[in-house]
Amino acid sequence: MIIDCHGHYTTAPAAHNEWRDQQLAAFESRQAPPTYPSISDDEIRESIELNQLRLLRERGADMTIFSPRASAMAHHEGDAGVSDAWAHACNDLIARVVDLFPETFFGVCQLPQSPDTSLDASVRELRRCVEELGFVGLNLNPDPSGGHWTSPPLTDRYWYPMYEAMVELEVPAMVHVSSSCTPVFHATGAHYINADTTAFMQLLEGDLFADFPDLRLIIPHGGGAVPYHWGRYRGLADMLKKPPLEEHLMGNVYFDTCVYHQPGINLLFDVIDIDNIMFGSEMVGAVRGIDPRTGQYFDDTKRYVDALNLNDAQRTQVYSGNARRVFPRLGRALDQRGL
Amino acid sequence: MIIDCHGHYTTAPAAHNEWRDQQLAAFESRQAPPTYPSISDDEIRESIELNQLRLLRERGADMTIFSPRASAMAHHEGDAGVSDAWAHACNDLIARVVDLFPETFFGVCQLPQSPDTSLDASVRELRRCVEELGFVGLNLNPDPSGGHWTSPPLTDRYWYPMYEAMVELEVPAMVHVSSSCTPVFHATGAHYINADTTAFMQLLEGDLFADFPDLRLIIPHGGGAVPYHWGRYRGLADMLKKPPLEEHLMGNVYFDTCVYHQPGINLLFDVIDIDNIMFGSEMVGAVRGIDPRTGQYFDDTKRYVDALNLNDAQRTQVYSGNARRVFPRLGRALDQRGL
Repeated sequence: MIIDCHGHYTTAPAAHNEWRDQQLAAFESRQAPPTYPSISDDEIRESIELNQLRLLRERGADMTIFSPRASAMAHHEGDAGVSDAWAHACNDLIARVVDLFPETFFGVCQLPQSPDTSLDASVRELRRCVEELGFVGLNLNPDPSGGHWTSPPLTDRYWYPMYEAMVELEVPAMVHVSSSCTPVFHATGAHYINADTTAFMQLLEGDLFADFPDLRLIIPHGGGAVPYHWGRYRGLADMLKKPPLEEHLMGNVYFDTCVYHQPGINLLFDVIDIDNIMFGSEMVGAVRGIDPRTGQYFDDTKRYVDALNLNDAQRTQVYSGNARRVFPRLGRALDQRGL
Repeated sequence: MIIDCHGHYTTAPAAHNEWRDQQLAAFESRQAPPTYPSISDDEIRESIELNQLRLLRERGADMTIFSPRASAMAHHEGDAGVSDAWAHACNDLIARVVDLFPETFFGVCQLPQSPDTSLDASVRELRRCVEELGFVGLNLNPDPSGGHWTSPPLTDRYWYPMYEAMVELEVPAMVHVSSSCTPVFHATGAHYINADTTAFMQLLEGDLFADFPDLRLIIPHGGGAVPYHWGRYRGLADMLKKPPLEEHLMGNVYFDTCVYHQPGINLLFDVIDIDNIMFGSEMVGAVRGIDPRTGQYFDDTKRYVDALNLNDAQRTQVYSGNARRVFPRLGRALDQRGL
């Protein structure tokens, strides 16, 4: 069984995205947003069958842990109410995808974060998504300001209500920023990767998992720059008088395989323990083209993982075992299905 | 001959750093700064002989391209006048190191950048350092705000007066941020690496080298996250309708070897053309400890490079040839010495 831990609904029906534009325009002109449009099951089916489902089958994977489009979360747009309504709409749409393709998709929610506001609404929406919609995880944006980084580090008590809910509900978070509202940071080429690196270093500086030993965080895009600079991070842990990274962080932190070339995947598996790596592709996502050097999609990360010299147990861990463990609600659902 | 392209004077005499504290205190209280202290040649000699020179010899390298301590540039502190006086003091001290150890050190200057000000003073100080002090390069801070990223991208015309001076003077810049004034970004663990990644992506999005075909930029710390995500950047260039990276950027962009473990160095040399890699260690710098797994300093990057299977021509390129080419003033000085 092959589970892709990192997929976004980047191909949502146009009416959904148009409503977002209308919602933001209404906010700007201080009017009430229009009613959310009616979107048929067939539209949703088509948007999935022609894209994620087709590519999953072509590439030989089975399931995707599926969340709203990350770049469209845009927590910096509008205000807390706007973010709340948008998160609800996005999560409800994910729930419909899961209902239409229950064998293939498991839901992960977008939170209604908004800069300089409490996490109360986000905790409420997380509960709704897990308890009512059956979601198995969440995307947590460490920078809802969209590149201005006005929130405190992830180790700050500001975030603790979210962590308490996550531990209670047994759901992990993928630490994932959204689009950038500054020209300095290209979204998928700089802001995403920087956020991954930043989050890891924040965790390294702090002692978050002493307070939350059962908290699990996934750092996407292969951990940003971290595996490439693993020696730097081991050395910084030493300089900061922290325990070795394996003890300090790697009981709680996981990296996906969204690294779009063979040498990068080789490095990831060379330096990071296989218990901490989960298969992911972010398909259909940041990089959609075909690599002229290989003739294959850049983001067909399964090819790179398949090319590693893994034994059967290791392959099972990366492709499904770690995901079942890190997402316990997913693991139990698969157990119940006898999978 | 082995030239370390990335060294900072992190061990400057205490009086130098104390003056900086006094300068900032004077700025805060709106008083004139004290006179810069007298520092003897012996103090400078000792600070170098016990540190950089000792380690260079122990590790078997010959020369260092040497600049003021990067984290202490702190362009976000004080105002433009404060930055100007501080840059002068730091650069004059580097010039004294070079005068005392002319066979070992070549100078690279700190610029008097200051947020939201023009680059006029920086261009003036660059000219002084190159024309009067004999320096061979500069450190250019893409974020003088210290983590708030208030400057425009490196491809913006704001930076063009600096690039014009660099081309005229035949000096390359290392793109190097300073300390971070936000708790979100640890300086050496997040801000440095993020800035490297960010700078590369800014260059990728733009067409700077069409305007400045002779401009040369060094992205330190092994290029941040870029080599690890080389497939992502190749894919993004394709999506943004840019030429392949080799054509688009790699005639003008260089990475150093400040990557503190063997797998990272292996990856760097696996994906980046050897013409674009310059030996560097950032010693004595960000990570000063000894790796318990190897018994060697994390930042003894020469060991990692030596462990690669390079032929003599490739070794010469990485250890000196590329530096002589990228820093033409260094190359000519070595030629004149018959080296």
